[in-house]
Amino acid sequence: MTAGPAEDTRTRLLHTALRLFTEHGVEGTSLQMIADALGITKAAVYYHFKTKAELTEAVAEPGIRDLDELVLRAGAQKRRGAQVDLLLEGFVDLVVRHRTLVALFSSDPGLIRAIEKSAHGGMEGFGQALLGILSGPAPDTTSRVNAMVALTGIAMAGGSPDLASLDDEELRTELLDVGRRLLGRPRRRTHLPVSTL
Amino acid sequence: MTAGPAEDTRTRLLHTALRLFTEHGVEGTSLQMIADALGITKAAVYYHFKTKAELTEAVAEPGIRDLDELVLRAGAQKRRGAQVDLLLEGFVDLVVRHRTLVALFSSDPGLIRAIEKSAHGGMEGFGQALLGILSGPAPDTTSRVNAMVALTGIAMAGGSPDLASLDDEELRTELLDVGRRLLGRPRRRTHLPVSTL
Repeated sequence: MTAGPAEDTRTRLLHTALRLFTEHGVEGTSLQMIADALGITKAAVYYHFKTKAELTEAVAEPGIRDLDELVLRAGAQKRRGAQVDLLLEGFVDLVVRHRTLVALFSSDPGLIRAIEKSAHGGMEGFGQALLGILSGPAPDTTSRVNAMVALTGIAMAGGSPDLASLDDEELRTELLDVGRRLLGRPRRRTHLPVSTL
Repeated sequence: MTAGPAEDTRTRLLHTALRLFTEHGVEGTSLQMIADALGITKAAVYYHFKTKAELTEAVAEPGIRDLDELVLRAGAQKRRGAQVDLLLEGFVDLVVRHRTLVALFSSDPGLIRAIEKSAHGGMEGFGQALLGILSGPAPDTTSRVNAMVALTGIAMAGGSPDLASLDDEELRTELLDVGRRLLGRPRRRTHLPVSTL
């Protein structure tokens, strides 16, 4: 199945919107600006998205969907260690995969506000779900602080222009290491350490 | 010297502005809203601040001034360990002291934009100065990521409503501990550990 021209325009609309949101903020970007950047009419934009709120939700949708799935998968693990490892690895993957979107989420309340009104119940709900799994049941203050620093630090660093030069694999390894250190999880190795014998 | 009524109004203006900025965002708050909340005329606001940009800078000023001083003091230390310790302790102090302002900085690009046009050269400049001291000269990727996660994680957790119930001393201790762990600095003790002999 190939993408029809309508689907093509929709995808291009979403990419262009994300780019302009990053440059001008969600609230500083109009549907007219997006139409102009694509060389299409505002009517053509309206054909796909009735309102800017609808478009904004669609831009954030892939990240939100992945986050939703991650919370469900991690919550379904039986052992606490497995829950934390799965959530941390999945969260780092997600941050790396959606770097541009994460940068926007970290810096633009316009995007967060747009999501708040969505069916997902907002970032606040996700934040609580992620923190709940990472810090465990009835957490002490230290566990809560560690979980919060891990989540926000990974998201902020992952979306930071200062680390944009790192390739995905490098960024993933670094963010995983720092997250494991913060959450007291053992560092996994994909290959065996060189023997010192 | 006691505060005159004019100075009083200025201080109340700054407090009210910070509160309304937190509730509605910088860009969602008008000078009229601030005047109304204080029960004064818009003309009375203009007497103190010619524009909203001027008022916004004045709201952020105490935090910016402390940050400026901190970067200078830390940079003046001879030993790298002393630079990192002083910067980390000072940054945690600052985040705890200016919790509300930090929360606003973490979530409102309107505030960041207002500061960007100020004489201080913007948060970007501060961020680079702080990161430069924490990650050291010619840092490797891991040091850069650790410094970034420490700074952003401490700021985000410190400003988070989830930790608003912690008192200043508790929050300071927790943020310092997590910062030291991330930056590989020894944990300082204000009293000696109980001997195990």
